Amino acid sequence: MSANPNLLVQALLGDAAHLRADLLARALTHRSAGRANNERLEFLGDAALGLIMAEALCARFPHADEGELSRRRAALVNKDSLAAVARQLRLGDYLHLGPGELRTGGHARDSILADALEAVIGAVYADCGFACARDMVLRLFAARIERVAGADAVKDPKTRLQEWLQARRRPVPGYSVVEIAGDAHNQRFMVACRLADTGAETAGQGSSRRRAEQDAAQRMLTELQAESHD
Amino acid sequence: MSANPNLLVQALLGDAAHLRADLLARALTHRSAGRANNERLEFLGDAALGLIMAEALCARFPHADEGELSRRRAALVNKDSLAAVARQLRLGDYLHLGPGELRTGGHARDSILADALEAVIGAVYADCGFACARDMVLRLFAARIERVAGADAVKDPKTRLQEWLQARRRPVPGYSVVEIAGDAHNQRFMVACRLADTGAETAGQGSSRRRAEQDAAQRMLTELQAESHD
Repeated sequence: MSANPNLLVQALLGDAAHLRADLLARALTHRSAGRANNERLEFLGDAALGLIMAEALCARFPHADEGELSRRRAALVNKDSLAAVARQLRLGDYLHLGPGELRTGGHARDSILADALEAVIGAVYADCGFACARDMVLRLFAARIERVAGADAVKDPKTRLQEWLQARRRPVPGYSVVEIAGDAHNQRFMVACRLADTGAETAGQGSSRRRAEQDAAQRMLTELQAESHD
Repeated sequence: MSANPNLLVQALLGDAAHLRADLLARALTHRSAGRANNERLEFLGDAALGLIMAEALCARFPHADEGELSRRRAALVNKDSLAAVARQLRLGDYLHLGPGELRTGGHARDSILADALEAVIGAVYADCGFACARDMVLRLFAARIERVAGADAVKDPKTRLQEWLQARRRPVPGYSVVEIAGDAHNQRFMVACRLADTGAETAGQGSSRRRAEQDAAQRMLTELQAESHD
């Protein structure tokens, strides 16, 4: 099933590069294939990616404040973008999956591809060190780093949720106040965000109705992106 | 007001060490003191700390799964632990604060100390590189890394919230189901967590009542820790 992993190492690190075969094999093993899987390397790779992107964004946006840097990083590092980079590397061809995932097309699933890419970054960090992992990540994500220079990256959650749904021809979400707690000067709003077509619902909270709606929208977006297998 | 920053550099990096004076000054400047403050360095330092701790915990707990590693890191890197390390370094003596924070004791405030320590880590990373920042962080946190080897680190949010409140002689929280959405096979619970003494309330959600309660407890804990200035 799996392609020759030496080809992947070349694509990641260049012709003369080496990467410990046991680490690479583990990075490419989904949890459905057994206990010696890629989850720990994914944890390490996620952290390495966070630092590499934090540094790259600080350099690229010397006047952005912390909030803007965080939003840009979230736009750059997420399941969709990681899966897209994994596809460019044909990472799906190298994955080891359990029988259930094999049968249902796990090789092409965004979440599995995104996690495997993080695990591969973790393996490169563990074997070659931080500078090596950074060089590789900056090369793999170069075009995307430039792209988040656009204004799109900093849209608020309600706007992003609406656009996500519209892109899939689904109806716009509804928001309703479920409860208001606290006294007049210190109110807490609890808001539900509801999708009419599936009945999915998330709860948000905040010191204003608007903040509670943004919170609920962010949670809905996170759930939709976590569930979506396309 | 501020102590000689060379003493801080010695405490952080050793006798012969250097750190760019402009970066250090910025790391020690709270946002209340002006626009050239430490928020960007805090963003960078937070990411560096995340990777350094991820690697240290992977090495220390070779059999822990990703969830356990995440919980141990959260127990190791949080406002309380960062503020405690900052106090050992007497970081408060070196801070630049605006007049309002000066008057109200900002030098001793957990959140300001924790943020400043992250910014100092960011400054060391930016000037001396990753290996240098890692050596420093592992030295500063050595005792704490050993301490999270205890089982305490992996308690669930409801337990931690109850213990946090009991340690402050406050009543236990109440949980109530606010709404149940979805059909019988795919229910979504929305739960409120409420503190009787202050009336504070957070919303949680999940596919079971227990999960929604844990979610609401985690949010309450996060809010209490963010608010607490002691």
